Amino acid sequence: MAIQVIQNVRFADGRRGSIVIDDGTIIATGESIPPERTMTVIDAGDRLALPGFVDAHAHMDKSLLGLDWYANEGGWTLQDMVDRERRYRVDKQIDFATQIRRVGRRMIATGTTATRTFIDIDTDIGLNAFHGALEAREALATGLSMQIVAFPQSGMLVRPGTVELMEESLRSGADVVGGLDPSSMDRDPKGHLDTIFGMAERYDKDVDIHLHEPGDLGAFSIELIAERTRALGMRGRVVISHAFSLGGVTDPYLGQLIDLLLENDIAIMSHGPSGGRPAPPVKRLHDAGVRLCAGNDGIRDTWGPLNMPDMLLRAFLITYRNNFRRDDEIAIALAMCMEGGAEVIGLGHYGLVAGSPADLVIVGGQNPLEAMVERPDRWLVMKRGVVVAREGDCLVA
Amino acid sequence: MAIQVIQNVRFADGRRGSIVIDDGTIIATGESIPPERTMTVIDAGDRLALPGFVDAHAHMDKSLLGLDWYANEGGWTLQDMVDRERRYRVDKQIDFATQIRRVGRRMIATGTTATRTFIDIDTDIGLNAFHGALEAREALATGLSMQIVAFPQSGMLVRPGTVELMEESLRSGADVVGGLDPSSMDRDPKGHLDTIFGMAERYDKDVDIHLHEPGDLGAFSIELIAERTRALGMRGRVVISHAFSLGGVTDPYLGQLIDLLLENDIAIMSHGPSGGRPAPPVKRLHDAGVRLCAGNDGIRDTWGPLNMPDMLLRAFLITYRNNFRRDDEIAIALAMCMEGGAEVIGLGHYGLVAGSPADLVIVGGQNPLEAMVERPDRWLVMKRGVVVAREGDCLVA
Repeated sequence: MAIQVIQNVRFADGRRGSIVIDDGTIIATGESIPPERTMTVIDAGDRLALPGFVDAHAHMDKSLLGLDWYANEGGWTLQDMVDRERRYRVDKQIDFATQIRRVGRRMIATGTTATRTFIDIDTDIGLNAFHGALEAREALATGLSMQIVAFPQSGMLVRPGTVELMEESLRSGADVVGGLDPSSMDRDPKGHLDTIFGMAERYDKDVDIHLHEPGDLGAFSIELIAERTRALGMRGRVVISHAFSLGGVTDPYLGQLIDLLLENDIAIMSHGPSGGRPAPPVKRLHDAGVRLCAGNDGIRDTWGPLNMPDMLLRAFLITYRNNFRRDDEIAIALAMCMEGGAEVIGLGHYGLVAGSPADLVIVGGQNPLEAMVERPDRWLVMKRGVVVAREGDCLVA
Repeated sequence: MAIQVIQNVRFADGRRGSIVIDDGTIIATGESIPPERTMTVIDAGDRLALPGFVDAHAHMDKSLLGLDWYANEGGWTLQDMVDRERRYRVDKQIDFATQIRRVGRRMIATGTTATRTFIDIDTDIGLNAFHGALEAREALATGLSMQIVAFPQSGMLVRPGTVELMEESLRSGADVVGGLDPSSMDRDPKGHLDTIFGMAERYDKDVDIHLHEPGDLGAFSIELIAERTRALGMRGRVVISHAFSLGGVTDPYLGQLIDLLLENDIAIMSHGPSGGRPAPPVKRLHDAGVRLCAGNDGIRDTWGPLNMPDMLLRAFLITYRNNFRRDDEIAIALAMCMEGGAEVIGLGHYGLVAGSPADLVIVGGQNPLEAMVERPDRWLVMKRGVVVAREGDCLVA
């Protein structure tokens, strides 16, 4: 591959210049790059260059994108929603690979170049969604890096046979062990977490636990998660997603929980939840040094129709939810959708710096904040030096 | 003007058909319209037809759209924000007419055909913003109906001279008397409200009061507003905007406040506020029969950069904030941005029915909910039978 130069870009810090790419890797950025060797040149027209976005919390297999509108009706307990989704999938014979590819193509079109997606495993659908995810991962690979989390959405201990299916997925391509609501879903916090962490140890995998449990119940789960992280030496390898309880306890307990997160280097995923319910205080966590990331969660599924696979919209919602108005606060939300996510899911080299893969987005805007507010079509998206989207259209099949 | 037919549209209820327009007024809608007289025909290509959106709470004069990015820094009390804005306007010599036209053109481009906008009046800028609004209203009239509210943003009793300026505006084109935070801003709830309602009585105008006051303080203001509405026979002519306190009191007091609103037919404007702070329980108010509307509030101003003049995004944010997931709940949010707003600000005939002005939006989507979630460029916007926007571009100068 020839040397590529993207010239006439604005960087996030206001500088203008070029990005030089050799064989899919950024080798230089700066004000004026002298031409050398055979080069292909892209003129960005004074648009903004950002690193490819990271959706660190997706449920790609749940999406109904591209299907007829799903009319949301019926009960709204967590159990109602889980049950309804499981039945719907069986009734409609959802093709998981197709749905995951649809979501993935929209991710690429909006500038997301890496994702961690949870894939449901239960005793009804078995490993069907997981196999669909493996197929879609291969199909999307040019444009999107995809981590797969084995996720027991319908409960684990309460549905015998689930653990065995999760273990099978971990032996055949799943990257991360997922858990959820040890008390309120599985009714056995010790049993749930011992099983999750046991799998992580046996298969040498990281852990990502969805914790919707409120207030002191969720806080107790955070304590138990921290204890197991410490005991197994899994510092830096555990994410707690949602963690609503961090917004539902009072000081000084919140301070103590933050200390536990820091001691065990446990990261928090928060996506600016709907409904005004208690949510993690993002700025407080950030200022304390807790690693943070974000994701679009379920994209138009039986749980709700709202979310779209656009991480600029996600940064907007985190900003909205946390009432950020200052530029320095909004920068925290944007970082959660870029370098924060890259760091938490372990992407390694990241960003518009020499040595990183050329995963990047060119988009209109005076600066990243304006791009977030206006959310124009992404002018160009590049993954490892390959143009994978143009003017809002994904070029990956 | 010849008869116009928009054919091949989807209506919100799923029906397909045509809309027939004569001299700017809808004269028929239905499945198959026999051609008569000279007709111009627009084929909507099976897109959705919705009535023109109503932004019932805008601050068009505050917007910095089209200007260099405003870096938000400094203190964040209400007083800090009010003071900073007043200084910024003077320093930068903001051209109000230009800014209001910029916002108005974006409103038209996204399908808003009517708005109630608050226009700041204070002893520094005097009536400059108001005169800019009159000029912009005339320039935008083809595409946008604009109600102007005389709004004492910087305080009224605490800034002597403000009342006189407000009265001057009410004599020369302002449509509505605005008030705000009688206790926390003007430090004199009785004095503030007596003055506001006194002006409304003298000039025979409606009232719209911005009430950010929390919990029991704001609830006390609601009681005082209801007392004056009753005493002056202003049933149906008063709006309380924001009304955060309705989310900050407990039953049975909330029920009593709702009874007060109903007895005096006081409407509530809620736009799905940021920050997860207490906010009016929209579904509860709707189910009780309180009239509701919504608006985009400040559009990228010194208060914050987030809001955009798109009422489909506003419906999305109301949905998000209220954790609506069911189709019937989301319909409440959408109605607030359409017929709810039209009713509250008194537009008269409204909607895609014979006898209404042909104010309408043609947009992609299986139904209004999908249009709200996807928010594609508006394919066509019509105001009184005139095409005023196409494919996201405003055609009004």
